[in-house]
Amino acid sequence: MTAPYPFSAIVGQDQMKRAMILTAIEPGLGGVLVFGDRGTGKSTAVRALAALLPPIRMIEGSPTNAERAEDSPDWAPPSDGAIVECPTPVVDLPLGVTEDRVTGALDIERALTRGEKAFEPGLLARANRGYLYIDEVNLLEDHIVDLLLDVAQSGENVVEREGLSIRHPARFVLVGSGNPEEGELRPQLLDRFGLSVEVRSPTDIEERIEIIRRRDAYETDTAAFLAHWQAEDAAIRDAILAARAAKPDVTTPDDILRDCATLCTALGADGLRGELTLMRSARALAAYEGAATITRDHLRRVAPIALSHRLRRDPLDEAGSVTRVIRLTEDLLG
Amino acid sequence: MTAPYPFSAIVGQDQMKRAMILTAIEPGLGGVLVFGDRGTGKSTAVRALAALLPPIRMIEGSPTNAERAEDSPDWAPPSDGAIVECPTPVVDLPLGVTEDRVTGALDIERALTRGEKAFEPGLLARANRGYLYIDEVNLLEDHIVDLLLDVAQSGENVVEREGLSIRHPARFVLVGSGNPEEGELRPQLLDRFGLSVEVRSPTDIEERIEIIRRRDAYETDTAAFLAHWQAEDAAIRDAILAARAAKPDVTTPDDILRDCATLCTALGADGLRGELTLMRSARALAAYEGAATITRDHLRRVAPIALSHRLRRDPLDEAGSVTRVIRLTEDLLG
Amino acid sequence: MTAPYPFSAIVGQDQMKRAMILTAIEPGLGGVLVFGDRGTGKSTAVRALAALLPPIRMIEGSPTNAERAEDSPDWAPPSDGAIVECPTPVVDLPLGVTEDRVTGALDIERALTRGEKAFEPGLLARANRGYLYIDEVNLLEDHIVDLLLDVAQSGENVVEREGLSIRHPARFVLVGSGNPEEGELRPQLLDRFGLSVEVRSPTDIEERIEIIRRRDAYETDTAAFLAHWQAEDAAIRDAILAARAAKPDVTTPDDILRDCATLCTALGADGLRGELTLMRSARALAAYEGAATITRDHLRRVAPIALSHRLRRDPLDEAGSVTRVIRLTEDLLG
Amino acid sequence: MTAPYPFSAIVGQDQMKRAMILTAIEPGLGGVLVFGDRGTGKSTAVRALAALLPPIRMIEGSPTNAERAEDSPDWAPPSDGAIVECPTPVVDLPLGVTEDRVTGALDIERALTRGEKAFEPGLLARANRGYLYIDEVNLLEDHIVDLLLDVAQSGENVVEREGLSIRHPARFVLVGSGNPEEGELRPQLLDRFGLSVEVRSPTDIEERIEIIRRRDAYETDTAAFLAHWQAEDAAIRDAILAARAAKPDVTTPDDILRDCATLCTALGADGLRGELTLMRSARALAAYEGAATITRDHLRRVAPIALSHRLRRDPLDEAGSVTRVIRLTEDLLG
Amino acid sequence: MTAPYPFSAIVGQDQMKRAMILTAIEPGLGGVLVFGDRGTGKSTAVRALAALLPPIRMIEGSPTNAERAEDSPDWAPPSDGAIVECPTPVVDLPLGVTEDRVTGALDIERALTRGEKAFEPGLLARANRGYLYIDEVNLLEDHIVDLLLDVAQSGENVVEREGLSIRHPARFVLVGSGNPEEGELRPQLLDRFGLSVEVRSPTDIEERIEIIRRRDAYETDTAAFLAHWQAEDAAIRDAILAARAAKPDVTTPDDILRDCATLCTALGADGLRGELTLMRSARALAAYEGAATITRDHLRRVAPIALSHRLRRDPLDEAGSVTRVIRLTEDLLG
Amino acid sequence: MTAPYPFSAIVGQDQMKRAMILTAIEPGLGGVLVFGDRGTGKSTAVRALAALLPPIRMIEGSPTNAERAEDSPDWAPPSDGAIVECPTPVVDLPLGVTEDRVTGALDIERALTRGEKAFEPGLLARANRGYLYIDEVNLLEDHIVDLLLDVAQSGENVVEREGLSIRHPARFVLVGSGNPEEGELRPQLLDRFGLSVEVRSPTDIEERIEIIRRRDAYETDTAAFLAHWQAEDAAIRDAILAARAAKPDVTTPDDILRDCATLCTALGADGLRGELTLMRSARALAAYEGAATITRDHLRRVAPIALSHRLRRDPLDEAGSVTRVIRLTEDLLG
Repeated sequence: MTAPYPFSAIVGQDQMKRAMILTAIEPGLGGVLVFGDRGTGKSTAVRALAALLPPIRMIEGSPTNAERAEDSPDWAPPSDGAIVECPTPVVDLPLGVTEDRVTGALDIERALTRGEKAFEPGLLARANRGYLYIDEVNLLEDHIVDLLLDVAQSGENVVEREGLSIRHPARFVLVGSGNPEEGELRPQLLDRFGLSVEVRSPTDIEERIEIIRRRDAYETDTAAFLAHWQAEDAAIRDAILAARAAKPDVTTPDDILRDCATLCTALGADGLRGELTLMRSARALAAYEGAATITRDHLRRVAPIALSHRLRRDPLDEAGSVTRVIRLTEDLLG
Repeated sequence: MTAPYPFSAIVGQDQMKRAMILTAIEPGLGGVLVFGDRGTGKSTAVRALAALLPPIRMIEGSPTNAERAEDSPDWAPPSDGAIVECPTPVVDLPLGVTEDRVTGALDIERALTRGEKAFEPGLLARANRGYLYIDEVNLLEDHIVDLLLDVAQSGENVVEREGLSIRHPARFVLVGSGNPEEGELRPQLLDRFGLSVEVRSPTDIEERIEIIRRRDAYETDTAAFLAHWQAEDAAIRDAILAARAAKPDVTTPDDILRDCATLCTALGADGLRGELTLMRSARALAAYEGAATITRDHLRRVAPIALSHRLRRDPLDEAGSVTRVIRLTEDLLG
Repeated sequence: MTAPYPFSAIVGQDQMKRAMILTAIEPGLGGVLVFGDRGTGKSTAVRALAALLPPIRMIEGSPTNAERAEDSPDWAPPSDGAIVECPTPVVDLPLGVTEDRVTGALDIERALTRGEKAFEPGLLARANRGYLYIDEVNLLEDHIVDLLLDVAQSGENVVEREGLSIRHPARFVLVGSGNPEEGELRPQLLDRFGLSVEVRSPTDIEERIEIIRRRDAYETDTAAFLAHWQAEDAAIRDAILAARAAKPDVTTPDDILRDCATLCTALGADGLRGELTLMRSARALAAYEGAATITRDHLRRVAPIALSHRLRRDPLDEAGSVTRVIRLTEDLLG
Repeated sequence: MTAPYPFSAIVGQDQMKRAMILTAIEPGLGGVLVFGDRGTGKSTAVRALAALLPPIRMIEGSPTNAERAEDSPDWAPPSDGAIVECPTPVVDLPLGVTEDRVTGALDIERALTRGEKAFEPGLLARANRGYLYIDEVNLLEDHIVDLLLDVAQSGENVVEREGLSIRHPARFVLVGSGNPEEGELRPQLLDRFGLSVEVRSPTDIEERIEIIRRRDAYETDTAAFLAHWQAEDAAIRDAILAARAAKPDVTTPDDILRDCATLCTALGADGLRGELTLMRSARALAAYEGAATITRDHLRRVAPIALSHRLRRDPLDEAGSVTRVIRLTEDLLG
Repeated sequence: MTAPYPFSAIVGQDQMKRAMILTAIEPGLGGVLVFGDRGTGKSTAVRALAALLPPIRMIEGSPTNAERAEDSPDWAPPSDGAIVECPTPVVDLPLGVTEDRVTGALDIERALTRGEKAFEPGLLARANRGYLYIDEVNLLEDHIVDLLLDVAQSGENVVEREGLSIRHPARFVLVGSGNPEEGELRPQLLDRFGLSVEVRSPTDIEERIEIIRRRDAYETDTAAFLAHWQAEDAAIRDAILAARAAKPDVTTPDDILRDCATLCTALGADGLRGELTLMRSARALAAYEGAATITRDHLRRVAPIALSHRLRRDPLDEAGSVTRVIRLTEDLLG
Repeated sequence: MTAPYPFSAIVGQDQMKRAMILTAIEPGLGGVLVFGDRGTGKSTAVRALAALLPPIRMIEGSPTNAERAEDSPDWAPPSDGAIVECPTPVVDLPLGVTEDRVTGALDIERALTRGEKAFEPGLLARANRGYLYIDEVNLLEDHIVDLLLDVAQSGENVVEREGLSIRHPARFVLVGSGNPEEGELRPQLLDRFGLSVEVRSPTDIEERIEIIRRRDAYETDTAAFLAHWQAEDAAIRDAILAARAAKPDVTTPDDILRDCATLCTALGADGLRGELTLMRSARALAAYEGAATITRDHLRRVAPIALSHRLRRDPLDEAGSVTRVIRLTEDLLG
């Protein structure tokens, strides 16, 4: 209801901001899982990023935010095809949301009043082409997390319930926040998030003061604060748009592919998701930085966020998984 | 149904009364959690405070107590915009309340008789601009507490259920009472309450006699008792209204911000909620006392109620958390 | 369906009878909890007491037994205000009763046939101005006990369910019977009953024979038995009515207030409910016995039934709680 | 559907047969609990006894088997008062019966088709004036057993559900069978059955052969078998009817009352149910045997079935409870 | 849908085949429980036996397969009484079947469209006069097994639910298959099956080859295979029909009754079900083999299938229960 | 929605590909269970195989994909019998699918609007003549897995629910994928899958690079990639169709039957499913390779996928079950 906090005004939290920017360049990376303390601005960041992106074009009233008639599901209300511009959608999963509101369900009003079995779209439809934010993903029931990850990966919502048999596009970036103290995600779910970052409350007094000062300024005089950070936000937006355009032309050397495979094998990450994510996020980073070719430096910088949540626990190694990824990356890639 | 007990006639319990006054000055502090024995007047106090505040102006019949047409949700019944004055609402969460009555739900009567999918507002709508009191918050199911804290923090009730997709303002002060012997709140919930106080049965015989005497007098001749305390209640009301007006002009020195950060870091409170609450409640106290600037003395006095519920348990330190906050505050702020 | 057993014909069980008489004089004491063996006449006693009290005057057909039009809820059926006399109601909570029948609920018949959302009152409405008897209160689900205690204390039934938002007076004396062998009440519930008594099967052979003999006589020739005891029942009724009238004029010396506070503090009873109940039941006893002033002797006699269920268990003191109250009362009050 | 096995043709099992005959003479004894191995003819016996009793007279079509118009509930269908004769009802509680079918419930057909909230009587109505048989009472849910015992004791079925508030007579003899190996009844439930007997598979070969032979004869040529035992059944019926008539005139000497009290006190049976049942079943036995006065011999013979299920377990006494009752009876009564 | 595998083509499994034939001669034996490995043709056998029996005559469209108008329940659709011939019904309990489909339930279509409370018969009605097959009876919920055994024993289905009060004949042979590795039946349920057999995968290579060869032949050219075994199936059918006719004339010598009782007593089988089943299955076997009198040899051959599931576990005797029955039978009967 | 990845472009995973090809030749083999790490292309493979098979001919709009009118269930919508060609169906079991959508259920729309009790077919109908793919079969509830295996084996879907009694053909190949780390299938379920294969993430760096390279190429320019592999896919399709035609003529020598029996006996596989599957999959492989006769070499190659999931765990043998099958096959067959 009020304007979101500017993305560029977020103090610190560089890994989280980088991960979110990468998903804006390459939405197919598979979502971000943000671990860490409460009150560290996770929800603020995703709202800020979406607000910074250019508006999307869509058919007016489209339940799935479709831009082209051919992407519009057959159960969408009739439309004259007028195109409107809207902010990138950010959909929250409110606490206690039921599965029918997530996937969509039978429209009870129409069933009762007109005897028709119509589909009432859910949050997955509304999140299409945008962000779906789950606060405390580890408190959500496993079957809903599973469902969200499935849809996020396939880009399509398949509903088989109450006699309905519906499918519609649901391409969104899933951002989950979680506090490891409140319950863990199953390893199988972890692996299905593309990127992961850990955030911590800053321990530096000056940084903490700066955060409170900015927060207070934002709340005291929102308009002035937004004006102050407008230019920095615009610079990030331009860089993201440039990176989207440049990405197909970024070269992927064979040695980089080999590095990806070597790294994942050495880390013992199951399956091949790790390698694909590592390569793609390195390519997105390269594009963001205007490089023509992926280099080992790109790999090195994205490896922790692309791989650390895919490691098996090593009881003999007390280092955290981020540290282990960094150490191994240095050993193997120099 | 009978007139509430006067706020100023409450014997002792200074911390509880101070915390409640601060929420009246700064409703954005995030609610109060009152811990302690049964029968110590927790419910009496919240009712007493609300009765002392000036009435609110609202559109007649507004389901969300809205004052301006633009704050009225589109599902509100049509109105001619007449403005009425009503006491500050105090909404109780009755035992066994269901989630649909809290958030609002599909209006079944209209669905059955007119085939319309209308929204029937719940307790959150009715609590807007007032107080929501939960007796024994630790006996409530976690998912309802979560929901209440979410709404209290965002000031907005988002309903996604039964095919409804509704949002309306729900700005209220949440007051929860709890008896630690009957079950604990999860630390994650604790941290989301703005202030906390502990109340105990008085051990002083004279104080106990005074309480019984006043209670007996109130019940024997309510009108006379209310008349007796009217002036004292009016003085508190005037001070609260003055503080609300003065608050924006209270200066927040950089040293005070640094003190807040230092204190929270030293206490190991997660996130930055502690610092923000500490600063804001000190500012409200300063305004209440007519001070132009927040001082260390204000911090010192609000630190126990703003921070003690955010501490991690320290198994090596047998002192209670209030004591630990006071001790550390003295060490750091002198 | 048959006439209840006469109150005065109950053999022994003096504490139980005294506690019940006190609630008839001062219904605000907060109900009685009767602990003890099955088959000791608990249910008989509450029915007997109610039958002995004079009939109440009420508007004919009032769902809440209201006497005055202004006490009649707006959902009551229209009435010409005719006044009828009815026996003091005794409402049983049948086993397996559902919450909707306790509090009242949506009238399904009217919803289905007329599409109206009307309130169908429950047992709490029917118990207004009378007694609510719960056999085996410790077998009832906690949330229903909580609800009953809440209503008994506030004198008002608040219903927030199925889109209904109803409140109506529900002033009744709650009498719960329980067998400690079948499960305990939570201490928090115990404390909310005003009085408690323990009953035991008599061990005296002559007393047992007398009980069987009277029971057999009552069942063999009910009319003759009732006639035999009529005068004794009338004497008790007259004494209760006299006590109700005299109660406001009974003096409460400051020393008695101090004794109450001293006693409760020494017993470690939480909160101030103990003191209030002690004072009020002593006042009712004084009125019953025609005394103008509460004396230590009154305190001494009501202390066991007003306080023994509020003690914390003391693992070093093997005496039962009744014994501990008596011992301490003697120590402190002489 | 086929004619029941004749009561008098049951081989052995004298205690069970005696207990059932006593309930036919004095239905207020409180039901019989039959413990023991499967396949020992418990269900056969109750059906056989009911078939032996004279038919009852009732208003044609009465849902509660009422004989007089004034016993007919107001929700019974209209009747011209014609009287019919019917066999004594025996109602089985089928496995998986739901509470609504036991107590009766809202008549859904009438609610749906005519919008009326009518009562559809349940098994308790149908069992009025007859027998209610529960096979494997220990497998039934506790709350249903509780309900059945409550109704059996009060003789009245009180229904408070689905907006109904109904009561109707439900006087029946409850016969429960149970196999102690499959789960125990709570002691509190045990005590509420009037009589209890243990049955065992016979170990005597000749007795077993006789049972199979009779069973085979009954199934091979039912008519001839029934004819063979008709006279013996008639003799028992006549004795029962004579006992019913003679019972009010049986004298109960004071010494017998004293014996009852002494015996129950010595056995440590809680409450006074034991004494009342002992006296009443001795009186029924005396009447059955044509005695004018209850004697110690009558007490001695009914004590095991009236008391053995009321004993507390004595860990130091390995004898079964029946043995303990017999031993003590001999010690005390000689 | 395809013709069942011929009964006579089943390789080995003599005990299982004998038990099934006995139930065809004497349906009142109480069902068969087949224990053993998956894939040993249990389901094939029951289907094969039913296909081999002569068709039954029934009123066209009868929901309970009734042959005579007087056996037709009053809720059956109207009929002109035309008689048709149908194969002996074999009803499968599909996985996940609900209790309402087993017993029958309210016909929702008629309730909704015509407002009538009609009965919709379930699988028990359809199984009348045939076989009810439960695969993996030990995976079924206990309360459904209980229900099936009750009905199988009484031959009548009693439905008390949803305001219905229906009874109809349900005489069928219950065949349950179970794998002891997947969960055990309660001993109380075991005892209620008439016969039990254990089947094992053959260990003889030639036998296994023969099974695969026949199975392959049956699937490759079903018609030829059926033709090949037609005569053998007809011989069994004729023997069964002859045995049904001869059974009433088979003599049961007293010594045989004594043997039955002696055997069951020695085995410690509870109740008298064992003896009755033993005698009846011996009689059926005698009739099948054309004998005029039951001999010890008949007993000896049916004892394992009639008794082995009724033994208590003997921890000191490691032999299986079948072995123990055989050993004891030899000891006692020679 | 996009064209599936080509079957022939799958790198490695030869056992999985062979197993899937065998089910295409002999759909009656009983499904494939694919164990192994996530991200190893299990879902890709089943989609790829189905896409490679020739289209099926079916009546337009047939709910069960029927080709002939006589295979069309009576509840199918009326049709003019027009025949269309469709790709081989691949039906996914979405997470959280309910049993009613699997088996089909009452058509609620028609029930509400027209008062008819019509059947709405489920996923089993849609999968007829195709593939049913269950991702993470070990996370599915046991009763649904049981149901799917039952239907897969019988080729028929039997629905007994909500008053419906429906059956329709449901012949499909069940492909289940599972990760043994997330929970095991009950041994009884394992045995009912025809074939099983284990897949692992490749450890060879070059192979991993090739996989990523192909995946990247497929996603970058799908059309070019499909064109590249078209010929290889066609070759496999032709071989499958040839094998289907040749299969009935493949000779099964008696020695091969004996080898099957010997092998299964030696492995201790329960029941005879193992032998039948072994013989049939060897026959399918022989047909695929153009052999006229099954040889030991065929057995040797299919034994691991036909038998390894049927072994009991041998605690003394640490080798995996695949290894044990291979070892034993070599020992016995040379």
